[in-house]
Amino acid sequence: MAQKEISQAVIRRMPRYYRYLGELLDAGVERISSNDLSNQMQVTASQIRQDLNNFGGFGQQGYGYNVKYLYEEIGKILGLDQVHNIIVIGAGNLGQALTNYVKFERFGFKIIALFDVNPALEGVSVRGIKVHMLDELDDFCANNKVDIAALTMPKAKADITAKHLVSIGIHAIWNFAHVDLDIDNEDVVVENVHLSDSLMQLSYNIEKNKK
Amino acid sequence: MAQKEISQAVIRRMPRYYRYLGELLDAGVERISSNDLSNQMQVTASQIRQDLNNFGGFGQQGYGYNVKYLYEEIGKILGLDQVHNIIVIGAGNLGQALTNYVKFERFGFKIIALFDVNPALEGVSVRGIKVHMLDELDDFCANNKVDIAALTMPKAKADITAKHLVSIGIHAIWNFAHVDLDIDNEDVVVENVHLSDSLMQLSYNIEKNKK
Repeated sequence: MAQKEISQAVIRRMPRYYRYLGELLDAGVERISSNDLSNQMQVTASQIRQDLNNFGGFGQQGYGYNVKYLYEEIGKILGLDQVHNIIVIGAGNLGQALTNYVKFERFGFKIIALFDVNPALEGVSVRGIKVHMLDELDDFCANNKVDIAALTMPKAKADITAKHLVSIGIHAIWNFAHVDLDIDNEDVVVENVHLSDSLMQLSYNIEKNKK
Repeated sequence: MAQKEISQAVIRRMPRYYRYLGELLDAGVERISSNDLSNQMQVTASQIRQDLNNFGGFGQQGYGYNVKYLYEEIGKILGLDQVHNIIVIGAGNLGQALTNYVKFERFGFKIIALFDVNPALEGVSVRGIKVHMLDELDDFCANNKVDIAALTMPKAKADITAKHLVSIGIHAIWNFAHVDLDIDNEDVVVENVHLSDSLMQLSYNIEKNKK
């Protein structure tokens, strides 16, 4: 498969393809034309063809896509054929909510530990997964394969925690803290989930619709 | 202010401006040049000027932006000068996590009730906000101003619940369920937070960095 640089805009659309193909697969659909996929996903057929051509195509003229094959190939593109171990820093409601999302495991994402500074949470388990005290973080990361750290902690400590995680070898951060992390290291990938930003965008569109 | 159609890409960047300006304001900064703002935000100064020009500018040549004024104006653009009442459908961990985000209130977003089908949650309160049973939803919405419904419930029931909410007059949905809602009504605005999609994008970038 060609290894050219693919834009993040294309990558952002791939999980949605993966989701729709998974639903088709569950429904027993074996083959789908780009037109039918286009109708279901409300994306133009030409957009679908363009997006998939970034990875070498997958379709055959007049024949459509093999759903299972395409699902699995997109899964590989997204790295879902690998297991990614996650630690959650911040074992409050949000950290616990993420830990309870069993479905992440279906995609290879396995939460293996939570960390918090609140002594009341020491020894507590969420879905069988233990909450550790934050001072055990370095030892834990030295002794376990940790691929991703989810930051579900208050904004004030997020940046310093992220820098520390990077210094002990964690190279992927799923950031829920309402701050842009200041990490100047191209080997580190950060994905932000800024809930307030999303709510503000909704609010803009509400007010726009009133006009 | 000109009321032309502004692209969602621009709108998506506005909460980030708002956040940075809020931090400058908290730090006592009164005025900032687009170059300084550009350095802090790691966006080009020309991008900043272009974005803000969509709303009529706000800057003065050689003088920079008045932080407080710009913060407030962007707040108005985003509708944050209004109060938006939110109900949360699904009072599990995620619904409770959102309810506990006190900061949303600072931006005018007020969670006024949670709903669930689990009788064990009846009468429970989260930060003083009551969990109602789902069969009380229609009455509640008839008797209260509800601006936004947050869907933090399983995917299977999300679409039918969203359609019902629209039928009883709710025109804004903040969707956390891992499904695209099938709502064909241009008066309804939907903002999706698809956590799995975000995790998959992170995973793609992790694997890409390994190559």
